Amino acid sequence: MFLKNCWYVGAWSHELAAGNVIGRTIIGEPVALYRTQEGALHAVADRCPHRWVPLSLGRVEGDALRCGYHGLVFGPDGRCQHIPGADRIVPGANVRTFPVEERDSWLWVWMGDPARADPALIPSAFGLNDPRWTMRADQIDYAANYMLINDNLLDLSHVDFVHEKTLGAATDYGWSDEVPRVKPLNRGVRIERWLTGRRQSQTNPNLVDTWSTYDYLAPGVFIMENKSYPHGMAERCGFGEPGDKPMTYRVEQQAVAPINDRETRYFFATGFDATNLPGHLVEGIFSLVMSAFKEDRAIIEAQQLLWDRTDASMAKAFIPSDKAPAMFRRIMDSLIREEEAAGAAAAA
Amino acid sequence: MFLKNCWYVGAWSHELAAGNVIGRTIIGEPVALYRTQEGALHAVADRCPHRWVPLSLGRVEGDALRCGYHGLVFGPDGRCQHIPGADRIVPGANVRTFPVEERDSWLWVWMGDPARADPALIPSAFGLNDPRWTMRADQIDYAANYMLINDNLLDLSHVDFVHEKTLGAATDYGWSDEVPRVKPLNRGVRIERWLTGRRQSQTNPNLVDTWSTYDYLAPGVFIMENKSYPHGMAERCGFGEPGDKPMTYRVEQQAVAPINDRETRYFFATGFDATNLPGHLVEGIFSLVMSAFKEDRAIIEAQQLLWDRTDASMAKAFIPSDKAPAMFRRIMDSLIREEEAAGAAAAA
Amino acid sequence: MFLKNCWYVGAWSHELAAGNVIGRTIIGEPVALYRTQEGALHAVADRCPHRWVPLSLGRVEGDALRCGYHGLVFGPDGRCQHIPGADRIVPGANVRTFPVEERDSWLWVWMGDPARADPALIPSAFGLNDPRWTMRADQIDYAANYMLINDNLLDLSHVDFVHEKTLGAATDYGWSDEVPRVKPLNRGVRIERWLTGRRQSQTNPNLVDTWSTYDYLAPGVFIMENKSYPHGMAERCGFGEPGDKPMTYRVEQQAVAPINDRETRYFFATGFDATNLPGHLVEGIFSLVMSAFKEDRAIIEAQQLLWDRTDASMAKAFIPSDKAPAMFRRIMDSLIREEEAAGAAAAA
Ligand code: FES
Ligand code: FES
Ligand code: FES
Repeated sequence: MFLKNCWYVGAWSHELAAGNVIGRTIIGEPVALYRTQEGALHAVADRCPHRWVPLSLGRVEGDALRCGYHGLVFGPDGRCQHIPGADRIVPGANVRTFPVEERDSWLWVWMGDPARADPALIPSAFGLNDPRWTMRADQIDYAANYMLINDNLLDLSHVDFVHEKTLGAATDYGWSDEVPRVKPLNRGVRIERWLTGRRQSQTNPNLVDTWSTYDYLAPGVFIMENKSYPHGMAERCGFGEPGDKPMTYRVEQQAVAPINDRETRYFFATGFDATNLPGHLVEGIFSLVMSAFKEDRAIIEAQQLLWDRTDASMAKAFIPSDKAPAMFRRIMDSLIREEEAAGAAAAA
Repeated sequence: MFLKNCWYVGAWSHELAAGNVIGRTIIGEPVALYRTQEGALHAVADRCPHRWVPLSLGRVEGDALRCGYHGLVFGPDGRCQHIPGADRIVPGANVRTFPVEERDSWLWVWMGDPARADPALIPSAFGLNDPRWTMRADQIDYAANYMLINDNLLDLSHVDFVHEKTLGAATDYGWSDEVPRVKPLNRGVRIERWLTGRRQSQTNPNLVDTWSTYDYLAPGVFIMENKSYPHGMAERCGFGEPGDKPMTYRVEQQAVAPINDRETRYFFATGFDATNLPGHLVEGIFSLVMSAFKEDRAIIEAQQLLWDRTDASMAKAFIPSDKAPAMFRRIMDSLIREEEAAGAAAAA
Repeated sequence: MFLKNCWYVGAWSHELAAGNVIGRTIIGEPVALYRTQEGALHAVADRCPHRWVPLSLGRVEGDALRCGYHGLVFGPDGRCQHIPGADRIVPGANVRTFPVEERDSWLWVWMGDPARADPALIPSAFGLNDPRWTMRADQIDYAANYMLINDNLLDLSHVDFVHEKTLGAATDYGWSDEVPRVKPLNRGVRIERWLTGRRQSQTNPNLVDTWSTYDYLAPGVFIMENKSYPHGMAERCGFGEPGDKPMTYRVEQQAVAPINDRETRYFFATGFDATNLPGHLVEGIFSLVMSAFKEDRAIIEAQQLLWDRTDASMAKAFIPSDKAPAMFRRIMDSLIREEEAAGAAAAA
């Protein structure tokens, strides 16, 4: 069961060059994303209405898409414009279109009712070309349901265990010592914490306090900021939000994009404060982040296999650090129920 | 749902040497094909009645087949002849046999009622050793239902798109310009067309008219002839069948052999007029044909995956070039319904 | 349907070093086997009760196991001892434990009611370090139900056919000539036979009589002895059990360990009489044994695929050499029925 009236990340902007088409599956639906030579972006169902072949195996012609099997041509409105060997357009020769927006280097696709597609609901992220940041981006696929990945990102106590030798060590641990503050947002949650008195890095023993916060927004967008200050800052600002300029500043943006209920694409970028990070450290830290995601994937894919063969009625233990994932699951459940009720009402 | 009272291609003749056995799955049924040292051909169920192990893992002994597990021996009539360690044949120790014929370099197996096996129903093809032709043959497997491959072969408008850089270019396109004539045959359809005023080849700008015809016979046998003439010939013979000797003459024979409802073996051969084709061109053209089949396979396997996850009730658009595939699907459906009705009547 | 009140081989002893944990699936259940630094052996469900992640991805700490995801710690009694970030243990934070015993170089796990776990039911095998033997051990996995492997081992007539060029040749054949004596045991069967007047080996034409016996015990433990004597011995002792010291003496021990109903792990060892076998022959013979198991696997995996697509109601032929496998299947069935009846009674 997926939320439909929602913007899903379909691709990084740079994955789709002008004049190209790519096929993606989003919440189980095949979507063809294409960009004209002039740069206009369109999204249509990736299934030719003739014989159900992916349109993404075809090609862009002008502002239209031509099927690679028997050559039918579909415009950005989804209507067939040409049928080889035919003198008129036959009935039923059209495809569904999807609202699509390009924002912060991501292509966002609205999978529900087009009339309700509101660009204001697109989570605000950091573009890869934002001059404030040196950004590195990539993506990996998980053989797991997206909610298991959301759970992972919403409870960072796992950093001390799953990433013991990578991110845990790099951030001097302490992610599992206390449960962070969790606040509900509109369609998401906000998580805030101070990690105090940690070594600045594995090679720098100076102690720092880090203000680490992230918004986690439906259906699975993670936008994090980590700002470090000299030790003592947390206490000086009463463990609230600091106002001063930090010593180091890093951002993370990640999008959990369900392919179907057992596969998920995971888009991520790390941004380093362009003004104070020596360039030669960027690749080292990003490769650490990549290693950490592979650690997550190993755990989560093993978890999915175990869920698949465990009776769903078996109880799970609820622990304090489950607060944020549980709150987010409730929010998602209520958005999905709302949408279904609206659908049922519309159908009645 | 497969047609049973029907000859299916099980193998190329040369796949089965004297004294050998091979295991094939035809319309979901395991079949062991074997040839005695003397050359006699037999087909039995590829499932030992003892502990259900493929008999094709055993070996030919005289005119019988010995199971490779505990050594039971079955004659060409399917009856057990020997059980190691036993002094008599136990009840139930026999296997089903299948009528099998060798014709035009193919081994044809009748999958239905043996009493109705009529060799006259075997489609007529070109043998690989026919002295009129220089033949090249091969086979590939598709992860797709055989009817999707039949559809492909019955609508060659796809040549202009799927094979744009291979067969399309080699034949100077035009396959999608008009819908060819389609006529019903007994258990199949015949397709005829003139491709007029095309360059003879990519390197030869002389214009030719090509008379291109094929029979497509249940369950999926494609026998094609392509004859080219100097441009003007189509008009001279009123766009009907030409009588003259062609400048170039090529034949294609292909058999679509369902393994089960999601896998199909595809046997094919191309024949070049032995009298007028420089030998050194044969391999070049055949490798182009092979590339084209891989293009088809990529499309059709993607199509199958999409069919598997699309609600079967969703409409498809019917276009003019669907005429032949639609006619053939109706013929297959009616043969299958007829067979089921006869089965039901026999059972009543 | 598996027998639960039963000892299953989970691993070779040497697979689990002190301070380590390994995850196994036994009759469909995930089990984490771990050994403390002090050498104590424990087995718990390999599924953290927090978010259902395999505990075997975590690590041993003292006599406990720490989950590798969010760090919960479970003692050998299955109770949670620590939850990071929490000040008390929450309800439901415990895992099932399994009785586990180390015997004859195997780790045996009891999958049923712990109250009924009786070490006296562990089949008696040969330890890999038993000074009487030079032992070689290994394991392979089969994509097949364990009962098909039991059937294989319970009817060695197959040696003449499946292992025609390996074990069959090495033992000069004759395994299918007569059906051996089969006797019921408590939870198993015993199989005895003389193979008389065979060449001692492919390079030694002296004739020998071999007394070959094995016990086959639930759920699938095979303990075999092969003793050879000068030809004539079988007759001298009336085809009964010989008392004399044999010329050559070899033992085989094998355990068929169901992973689930389509996968099975197969543990095996061959023991050579340390007192009379030239050391340089050991590797040669053991590699022959390994080749033979791969021959079995090829047959049995093909058999499983065929069973999966054959209507279960189709008859099988029963032959004399089926006596032992049939008797063992009856014993297993009755143990399983007994266990179910006891479970139903307990539930009533
Ligand atoms: S499947 Fe797209 S044109 Fe035929
Ligand atoms: S399975 Fe064929 S002889 Fe036993
Ligand atoms: S899943 Fe084991 S501690 Fe969370």
